[in-house]
Amino acid sequence: MTGQTVYDLLIIGAGCAGASAAMYGARLNLKTAMLAELPGGLITTTDIVENWPGIKKISGSDLAQSLLDHAISYGVPLINEKALELLKAVPGITGEKKSGYIVKTASSSYPAKTILIATGSEHRKLGVPGEKEFASKGVSYCALCDAGFYKNKTVAVVGGGDSAAKEAILLSEKSSKVYLLVRKDILRAEAPNREKLKKLETEGKVEIRFNTEIEEILGSEKVEEIKLKSGEKLRIDGVFMAVGMIPRSELAKNIGVTLSIGGEIIIDRESTTNVPGIYAAGDVTDTKFKQAIISSAEGITAAVEAFEYVNKNEFVFT
Amino acid sequence: MTGQTVYDLLIIGAGCAGASAAMYGARLNLKTAMLAELPGGLITTTDIVENWPGIKKISGSDLAQSLLDHAISYGVPLINEKALELLKAVPGITGEKKSGYIVKTASSSYPAKTILIATGSEHRKLGVPGEKEFASKGVSYCALCDAGFYKNKTVAVVGGGDSAAKEAILLSEKSSKVYLLVRKDILRAEAPNREKLKKLETEGKVEIRFNTEIEEILGSEKVEEIKLKSGEKLRIDGVFMAVGMIPRSELAKNIGVTLSIGGEIIIDRESTTNVPGIYAAGDVTDTKFKQAIISSAEGITAAVEAFEYVNKNEFVFT
Repeated sequence: MTGQTVYDLLIIGAGCAGASAAMYGARLNLKTAMLAELPGGLITTTDIVENWPGIKKISGSDLAQSLLDHAISYGVPLINEKALELLKAVPGITGEKKSGYIVKTASSSYPAKTILIATGSEHRKLGVPGEKEFASKGVSYCALCDAGFYKNKTVAVVGGGDSAAKEAILLSEKSSKVYLLVRKDILRAEAPNREKLKKLETEGKVEIRFNTEIEEILGSEKVEEIKLKSGEKLRIDGVFMAVGMIPRSELAKNIGVTLSIGGEIIIDRESTTNVPGIYAAGDVTDTKFKQAIISSAEGITAAVEAFEYVNKNEFVFT
Repeated sequence: MTGQTVYDLLIIGAGCAGASAAMYGARLNLKTAMLAELPGGLITTTDIVENWPGIKKISGSDLAQSLLDHAISYGVPLINEKALELLKAVPGITGEKKSGYIVKTASSSYPAKTILIATGSEHRKLGVPGEKEFASKGVSYCALCDAGFYKNKTVAVVGGGDSAAKEAILLSEKSSKVYLLVRKDILRAEAPNREKLKKLETEGKVEIRFNTEIEEILGSEKVEEIKLKSGEKLRIDGVFMAVGMIPRSELAKNIGVTLSIGGEIIIDRESTTNVPGIYAAGDVTDTKFKQAIISSAEGITAAVEAFEYVNKNEFVFT
């Protein structure tokens, strides 16, 4: 470790959670760095964000950049490498002192007193032709983000769980018609949501199709129709995939951080995990609503919590 | 109630938490209103905010206004009245249906299915001459917010609790000298913070004065010195009051919402209280770090939670 920088707070990920945490960490005089293969995070894939408080309209990438710029303006380095491994520096340590952590990348390794895991999650893809081509051109993965663009239009939701049900309910508030396409013959939604959907079905606002799978998404500039495996075609303006999220929690899991059944990192209201000195924030966590501003707040909470932890402990690395 | 608007979500308060919740509520098609005597909230008393993610510098009042504008752009009314009472519409109701709530002001009463209490808190004042006159001109109530303005300067912190200790530690990172003025002969700070202060004292960065009270705060344009009751004067550039916060939680208390010992509303990670349909967000809650962005996220969480609650229940008002 001779001569190597020991970070007070090393943030893995540089999306909304990571960049906001970096800004706060630096303001608190913590030696802070962000380590990210793809800075900006998931929100950079969103065309237009209308629900970041105080900003009526901004592109997802501009929003992400403003958060990064804010952190960088305080001198926080953005290390453009993928974190491959997270280890305790001195695994067997007992007594008052705390072991630091080491994050390894392909080319280097970084010691840090605390770690914030802000690695986000990825939307599970349906895996059909047209899905990738029309991403943000009618193919969406977040009704809460994009419902506003489909006022009085026809949309389809793909999925058979409670989140698919909720997406359909939410979309029905603004869209004129919502198809809910369920692969199996059952909808695994909570009772109140099933009731609500039933009511919306009698009103003609929602149409649930069981045993239904998409063959292909079609259109020219943007989505125009979906072709089902049955051969039928549905004319729609947008299709929302609600087939699950994949939290990027491998690094956490390997160091003993407790995950939910769905693989999300379990945190408390102070963004702490079960492992002292390891924090998590944003979409990788078990937070109920995945929203940019919530990720940002969790990141900031983690940074202030890390500040307190760094100030009250001594750390060893060898 | 005939003909009167029944709100889905009535927000008491229009600071960072309330305004952000209002924007989300409206986007979710909830019939939403804000009820606030002093829109904007506590942050409007902060000269410059440098830690709202994505904005390097903005006045507190401009930030508050941008959040309000965002909500108002979705048609959310801002009712400029003080909420005096919060009641259940049908207190004795049993069975499946939920009682709505009524909020009374001096001139009217407003029915709503859910309530968000975002009434904030006020800094306890020390109550000495000069405190009011030099507010935001050297008198501050938040080191985390304002420490940056006192780089290499001399400041005083007033208070005898753990938050005063933490303010002093935080300020010592940037300021050249920090006086910690304790009224009694003991500092009720957590052990690690006491240790840290002891270390900072030996380094000459912090000077703790026990049995010390301020008589008066003096200056011309801004704070220049404080006169102690002993007659001694200390030349300082800023004085931070850490003598406590007063959460505005009376409405919540009277309807049976559980409060912490300090009078803060106890919420969970979904911003719910122990009373179904009543949410709380921002500085009025028991959240550990009181920061604008965290308030905003809590407000948004409450709005989404209220959306789910409104959609899955039926409500009665008479």
